[in-house]
Amino acid sequence: MKVKVITLGEVMMRLSTPGHERFLQSDQFNIVYGGAEANVSVSLAQWGIDTQHVTVFPPHDLGKAATQYLRQMGVGIDHVYTAPGRLGLYFLENGSMQRSSKIIYDRFDSAFANFDARQVDWDLIFDGASWFHWTGITPALSQYAADMTLAALQAASSKGLMISGDINYRRNLWQYGKGPLDIMPELIKYTQVIVAGLADFENCMEINSSSYEEACVAAKKAFPQIKYITSTERDAVSASENGLHALLWNGEKLLKSKTYQMTHIIDRVGGGDAYMAGLIYGLLHHKDQEALEFAVAASVLKHSIPGDANLVSLEEVQALVRGEHVGKLLR
Amino acid sequence: MKVKVITLGEVMMRLSTPGHERFLQSDQFNIVYGGAEANVSVSLAQWGIDTQHVTVFPPHDLGKAATQYLRQMGVGIDHVYTAPGRLGLYFLENGSMQRSSKIIYDRFDSAFANFDARQVDWDLIFDGASWFHWTGITPALSQYAADMTLAALQAASSKGLMISGDINYRRNLWQYGKGPLDIMPELIKYTQVIVAGLADFENCMEINSSSYEEACVAAKKAFPQIKYITSTERDAVSASENGLHALLWNGEKLLKSKTYQMTHIIDRVGGGDAYMAGLIYGLLHHKDQEALEFAVAASVLKHSIPGDANLVSLEEVQALVRGEHVGKLLR
Amino acid sequence: MKVKVITLGEVMMRLSTPGHERFLQSDQFNIVYGGAEANVSVSLAQWGIDTQHVTVFPPHDLGKAATQYLRQMGVGIDHVYTAPGRLGLYFLENGSMQRSSKIIYDRFDSAFANFDARQVDWDLIFDGASWFHWTGITPALSQYAADMTLAALQAASSKGLMISGDINYRRNLWQYGKGPLDIMPELIKYTQVIVAGLADFENCMEINSSSYEEACVAAKKAFPQIKYITSTERDAVSASENGLHALLWNGEKLLKSKTYQMTHIIDRVGGGDAYMAGLIYGLLHHKDQEALEFAVAASVLKHSIPGDANLVSLEEVQALVRGEHVGKLLR
Amino acid sequence: MKVKVITLGEVMMRLSTPGHERFLQSDQFNIVYGGAEANVSVSLAQWGIDTQHVTVFPPHDLGKAATQYLRQMGVGIDHVYTAPGRLGLYFLENGSMQRSSKIIYDRFDSAFANFDARQVDWDLIFDGASWFHWTGITPALSQYAADMTLAALQAASSKGLMISGDINYRRNLWQYGKGPLDIMPELIKYTQVIVAGLADFENCMEINSSSYEEACVAAKKAFPQIKYITSTERDAVSASENGLHALLWNGEKLLKSKTYQMTHIIDRVGGGDAYMAGLIYGLLHHKDQEALEFAVAASVLKHSIPGDANLVSLEEVQALVRGEHVGKLLR
Amino acid sequence: MKVKVITLGEVMMRLSTPGHERFLQSDQFNIVYGGAEANVSVSLAQWGIDTQHVTVFPPHDLGKAATQYLRQMGVGIDHVYTAPGRLGLYFLENGSMQRSSKIIYDRFDSAFANFDARQVDWDLIFDGASWFHWTGITPALSQYAADMTLAALQAASSKGLMISGDINYRRNLWQYGKGPLDIMPELIKYTQVIVAGLADFENCMEINSSSYEEACVAAKKAFPQIKYITSTERDAVSASENGLHALLWNGEKLLKSKTYQMTHIIDRVGGGDAYMAGLIYGLLHHKDQEALEFAVAASVLKHSIPGDANLVSLEEVQALVRGEHVGKLLR
Amino acid sequence: MKVKVITLGEVMMRLSTPGHERFLQSDQFNIVYGGAEANVSVSLAQWGIDTQHVTVFPPHDLGKAATQYLRQMGVGIDHVYTAPGRLGLYFLENGSMQRSSKIIYDRFDSAFANFDARQVDWDLIFDGASWFHWTGITPALSQYAADMTLAALQAASSKGLMISGDINYRRNLWQYGKGPLDIMPELIKYTQVIVAGLADFENCMEINSSSYEEACVAAKKAFPQIKYITSTERDAVSASENGLHALLWNGEKLLKSKTYQMTHIIDRVGGGDAYMAGLIYGLLHHKDQEALEFAVAASVLKHSIPGDANLVSLEEVQALVRGEHVGKLLR
Repeated sequence: MKVKVITLGEVMMRLSTPGHERFLQSDQFNIVYGGAEANVSVSLAQWGIDTQHVTVFPPHDLGKAATQYLRQMGVGIDHVYTAPGRLGLYFLENGSMQRSSKIIYDRFDSAFANFDARQVDWDLIFDGASWFHWTGITPALSQYAADMTLAALQAASSKGLMISGDINYRRNLWQYGKGPLDIMPELIKYTQVIVAGLADFENCMEINSSSYEEACVAAKKAFPQIKYITSTERDAVSASENGLHALLWNGEKLLKSKTYQMTHIIDRVGGGDAYMAGLIYGLLHHKDQEALEFAVAASVLKHSIPGDANLVSLEEVQALVRGEHVGKLLR
Repeated sequence: MKVKVITLGEVMMRLSTPGHERFLQSDQFNIVYGGAEANVSVSLAQWGIDTQHVTVFPPHDLGKAATQYLRQMGVGIDHVYTAPGRLGLYFLENGSMQRSSKIIYDRFDSAFANFDARQVDWDLIFDGASWFHWTGITPALSQYAADMTLAALQAASSKGLMISGDINYRRNLWQYGKGPLDIMPELIKYTQVIVAGLADFENCMEINSSSYEEACVAAKKAFPQIKYITSTERDAVSASENGLHALLWNGEKLLKSKTYQMTHIIDRVGGGDAYMAGLIYGLLHHKDQEALEFAVAASVLKHSIPGDANLVSLEEVQALVRGEHVGKLLR
Repeated sequence: MKVKVITLGEVMMRLSTPGHERFLQSDQFNIVYGGAEANVSVSLAQWGIDTQHVTVFPPHDLGKAATQYLRQMGVGIDHVYTAPGRLGLYFLENGSMQRSSKIIYDRFDSAFANFDARQVDWDLIFDGASWFHWTGITPALSQYAADMTLAALQAASSKGLMISGDINYRRNLWQYGKGPLDIMPELIKYTQVIVAGLADFENCMEINSSSYEEACVAAKKAFPQIKYITSTERDAVSASENGLHALLWNGEKLLKSKTYQMTHIIDRVGGGDAYMAGLIYGLLHHKDQEALEFAVAASVLKHSIPGDANLVSLEEVQALVRGEHVGKLLR
Repeated sequence: MKVKVITLGEVMMRLSTPGHERFLQSDQFNIVYGGAEANVSVSLAQWGIDTQHVTVFPPHDLGKAATQYLRQMGVGIDHVYTAPGRLGLYFLENGSMQRSSKIIYDRFDSAFANFDARQVDWDLIFDGASWFHWTGITPALSQYAADMTLAALQAASSKGLMISGDINYRRNLWQYGKGPLDIMPELIKYTQVIVAGLADFENCMEINSSSYEEACVAAKKAFPQIKYITSTERDAVSASENGLHALLWNGEKLLKSKTYQMTHIIDRVGGGDAYMAGLIYGLLHHKDQEALEFAVAASVLKHSIPGDANLVSLEEVQALVRGEHVGKLLR
Repeated sequence: MKVKVITLGEVMMRLSTPGHERFLQSDQFNIVYGGAEANVSVSLAQWGIDTQHVTVFPPHDLGKAATQYLRQMGVGIDHVYTAPGRLGLYFLENGSMQRSSKIIYDRFDSAFANFDARQVDWDLIFDGASWFHWTGITPALSQYAADMTLAALQAASSKGLMISGDINYRRNLWQYGKGPLDIMPELIKYTQVIVAGLADFENCMEINSSSYEEACVAAKKAFPQIKYITSTERDAVSASENGLHALLWNGEKLLKSKTYQMTHIIDRVGGGDAYMAGLIYGLLHHKDQEALEFAVAASVLKHSIPGDANLVSLEEVQALVRGEHVGKLLR
Repeated sequence: MKVKVITLGEVMMRLSTPGHERFLQSDQFNIVYGGAEANVSVSLAQWGIDTQHVTVFPPHDLGKAATQYLRQMGVGIDHVYTAPGRLGLYFLENGSMQRSSKIIYDRFDSAFANFDARQVDWDLIFDGASWFHWTGITPALSQYAADMTLAALQAASSKGLMISGDINYRRNLWQYGKGPLDIMPELIKYTQVIVAGLADFENCMEINSSSYEEACVAAKKAFPQIKYITSTERDAVSASENGLHALLWNGEKLLKSKTYQMTHIIDRVGGGDAYMAGLIYGLLHHKDQEALEFAVAASVLKHSIPGDANLVSLEEVQALVRGEHVGKLLR
């Protein structure tokens, strides 16, 4: 069976200072493009999965460059819209040791956030697709974006797609007059695979628990269509070193992955998106525990790569799952 | 007499592709800061003039970096305000030969444009100052910015400062519901030195003439406080080569500067601001024709320097006016 | 009518020294990808033309990066094959003034050159296509590549496509035991639009003439299917400055384009390919003289852009044809 | 109470190889400016403290660039002198693991070292100031510099400023005919806060002890005006990893800070100056133990930042003291 | 006694992505030159040893640049030949943590591999020389290269030189129809110092043993001229961290070096060659255990330096052997 | 006959801002090494001439890097001395158009200037040599350097070498108490080929004439050993464009070379040294007019190459003399 994954979300230009320079000292930015949902499509495309990313760019050259980026990475752009407005941006400063990495967002009022998606033909988009992935960032941007997410979910659901949603609650979004509890429960109703930490349960589902498994059970009760709930857990020693493992609740039990020590982090942005992509790939191809191990290994590799995108091959993820090649020089 | 110049305007982060790369192919931007009015203060500061630039930055690290830039260049920052919002940006692609240079602005909704200046103490700002410079870009940004410009002009005028204004009409600004004719005439009324080309006369003063001198006479009639009207004239052979001279009407006659051939342009952005700074310096220190020659020589040198700022010394401008050192290797 | 253009040829990694550094002094190379035929598809893709580039890459990461490049530029990669072997390379040193630019090729024994194309389904490739473009570089590489070109031409011809061929004779290719006269005439027989200079006529068609028009008439006599013969003519003042115009013989008369003076050349590699792409676009959309002017304007703009690819929009070429925007700063 | 800190010392251009390149392989240097005392002012300026750095630069463009640097960082330059001579330089090669970092100084005969400070109006400089900081590097450079230090200390002392001195004995300075024991004791007499390790006690105060606390007691006996003696202690695992803590003797007892493990050092130059700045800030605002913790946390953060300067905010240091944010991605 | 070392082998251009970029994302390569045997000469030249490297380059500018590199590093180039063909290349992507470093070789059909060495005057080359070093890479390239190695060994042996050989079996070489067992035993017969791991024993000497010491004894039995057998042992925690020690069997017993933990590896390529150079230097100047310690310390330092070459001084290696300076800032 | 050329002079580290950045805005320097006399040896080495450059470096890594540079370029370093002190430096800012290029020297008190050359064995150095080249920069640095020059000249003269001297009067040198007239005439007495402009005649030979030919005749009268007097003449249109030709007086008549227009100068530093090297090469191999044409063509090519060194081949210079290849793309 041919798999096809649809993702929906804003793609921003990312401007990062070179090396470990601070914003206050750098006169140069490195440019890539990224967004929580597009990053998932990019990962999946590296592994041979057919993808389409639904997004909106301004019609100028920076929007074209962002489109080119998706195309370069192998992501389908059949449903990339252009509309007046600006390209969302984010500025990144890479931390080190006790100094944290920092992001300054500059994404308000973007062409994406202000896009009226009512003319979008979601049936066409989801035609032949197997999976739809969204995140809680999109409905947090604007009423337009929240409406677009709901419309997409309804169409995907009616087409019978598997649907995953990364709750990803961020306090500094949600500035358009609605709160997460106004919007998110309605969207979660359509979603079978949920990425959520305890704060997400609390802020977006009004589920308060200090036990992850209990929270999962409560979520399932409130949203019975849920099949999987998952989260990565990070042991943040410093900006340079983290431990990483993940949890996957499959309705029956809470699976836990192997823990990896990431001792020389190059770039942690997109680590969660790499996990999500790994989980989609894994659930489409493997049993639950294997899927989980694939996902966390994918996320670990992301931390070794500059940029938002997890530019690793299937073979590289699989080798790490098996513990092969680590520390070798591959010739 | 100690001279002190006050400038008012937005300062943007400028992101330019390296070398002659196009937006579509670059993965790096060089960062400087600039704005039509701040560029004037930077030029003047290189020549030992005491300056203060009045502007507004967001309170995050990019706003701090912009503040640092002004301070580095020797511009006074006693009246730099911080307010919520974003930092205005512009993206620059350097052209070459038959390919034009291109700017993509991303400045709407900036901390500057949304700043309510009613609490600003203009009397304090203008205390001890000799000259105030504004441009038509500021009132084109927002009602707030237009109000701020008017308040500044009224205070500067009541303090007896010399006032210069660069009309600088840009069609793609003026998006907040007012047109230039609603706003500009009221501001021009306070201004003694006007930078205006024929299109500016037409769009901002309703003066239609194909003769520069006639337009000047008409402007003086409409705005009797005007003492000087000036403009640079560019013979644009290509993106790499321009001829440049300038005109200065002093109420009596139209003076014309020497013409320079700029055969290997490095960066033309800020060329007009360098001219304006040169003219302010010139009119403060020299007779009209000398002032004009100083200003155009300053502008020519700007075209040889990357960035918005005209980082040249007084001695360098003076030597060019005298035709000295050109083509020499200075040891 | 939807237009679709197929191109066939090797794509090499291009490694160029930064700025004007010589091979002997540089410790860094800038990387892009290019090839005479792919460059044509890249140009056409910028102008909204549907393209597919047929080529072969090794299965390692550099081959993937080259594939990504084509995809980024908007070129179709449905018929990009992978096969064992190496990626062809070329090293470029940019000259200046009296110092010439230099290319060192390292393309022998590439995956492309050694690819046995007998299993390629040319009918599928040309299905729905309107135009096929090849160059004399491909048959000069190896017997395999010559055979592939012939097979492609036969299929394209039987499908009724318009066929263009850039003769592009290069003495230092043709190392596999055959000479151009053994191979090229057979290939030219299928071709309606020929790019050829006087040396090409001589080496690949045995037509010796010092008059371009006479050579065209002789070529038509020998190859009656020819509809157009064309060539750019370069007045090479120095590595930094060239004059450029082009000739187009349409079976009736020899049209000559406007001459452009290119005074600050950034990168001349790919200038001919940009012309070819312009001519294909022009002949598909315009009358002969207009097509010619479009093509030469496209080629001029290429000389202002680093890399092999002519990253210009339709609007930019059209504006140059009309003489608009030259030397302007586009905001 | 408004605090104002005066620092005195040479500012050098620092030329460092990029990344981990050795001097023997690099064809590029990154440029910043730094000096033990100016680094203190730069740190303090980041935290909102009013500073003035007293130094001397040559009158050429490199001297201007150094002045601009201080201004950019927010340090007062009212008392920066220009005098003929050269700009002191130092070359830095960043080590890694078992390979040590290396500095080559090229600072002899600088404009600073040869500056006759007799005309300096120290009373004016110290007017309204609260703290004066000097180091043992200055008197080690030349008789002129030693005289300048003494004159500054006498004036600061008579004005009642708090005075700190970093003994910082370096064997390869002191080349002008005097030794540290000829000069330093006289300077220490004016100083209340002393930074000294055991080797400094021995070389500059003739105090030999293997116990830090005993040495402090002996120093207090010899120099009764002393209020604090302090030192950082480094557990140098490798060039990439150090442990760091600090000691502060306050006349009563020896306080010890928390120990930090710095596992991925970016740049250790200026770590001691960051500590000193932190201690000045701490002693001005906090009790002794808190001051010490602030200082060592500031120093730790410095090790994560390229360049001499500790570009961290007050909030960042305070958060580290509280153990917050470590390993987080700040959005 | 003046020592002179001769090395023989291909020198390739190494093209590595900057920082930790993957091949799939980089548009720039850093260029150095290297080869297993030339790296040994470069190391030895840093320590004042007279060296000559015998190799072959194509006659174009890249061959010249490679020659310049050897000369720059202080290696003798009296016996560098030029011959038609290409320069061997290898592409390097630096890994990090769980992501392995990757090399793509592009060295087939190089000028070196295709060089007919029959006219080489080996007697002249070895005149006055004390040591000859070869590796198993050369005979694996082509019959020509295998023949050249044999001829060199015969000449070196008849001149009484000490001969070392790094077996260095690589499966993906040996593509010219011969296997290692066809060629290597004959070459090993001339060699006194053998670098071999267990896989090398098996593949090139048909000695199968899981005990290093037993394998050594067996090798000595088969090749009685052998005096030393040695190998480094790597504990590969990750691409960023390795433990390293080495073994040296001297015919009597198996010596083991100190173990070093390399916690922040910059570049591991050439680590083995640095060890070999250290061992040659050590055996020429020290007793066995000291030689071993020198060699492994040299190798450790290599891992901190970008590029193939171990640019460290004798003093630096000696200090590390003594455990001095580690973690210090050398001024 | 084997030719061997000896040059004597200081080699400085050159630190230049990238592109056209000013000192005031750059945070990076590109590093090469150069000196008027070493540049001559580097040029000659490119053309296969055996050279030795006599100079002095400090014993640290920057001195080693400078030595490596000479070796890389193929210059003999058998007589490179090390002595305590600093490495001379110069900082370069590349101008453009009306903005002049600027050099800041920082070369006083260098290891070279303070080197007591009395122990140098000049007879050994000049053994087998054919030509000695010196410039007026060396005796202008210090009494030591003047003495060294004289000793070298006496030895070279007694050995019968051809001797060339580039007078190269620079007012800002000569700071050690002697003037050019105290020193230069004695040195000129040993010199057969003199590079001198009218200012050099005046300042170093007390010959005042506005006619170049008359000055030559007068010089020959005063210094009868002179065989050739020569000078380049520059028509400095701007920093970006110069005309260049040269004059050569051979005792009989004044020869004038072809004039070249250099329209896009990349780097003019070393242009005179490239001329000198060309003249030495030319006079050793050709008749006077041909030698002159070779020399000026060599100098023209230098202006197209970044750095001090004229990295061009014999074939490239010869082709330019013949007017070939100009504006071609060499494949």
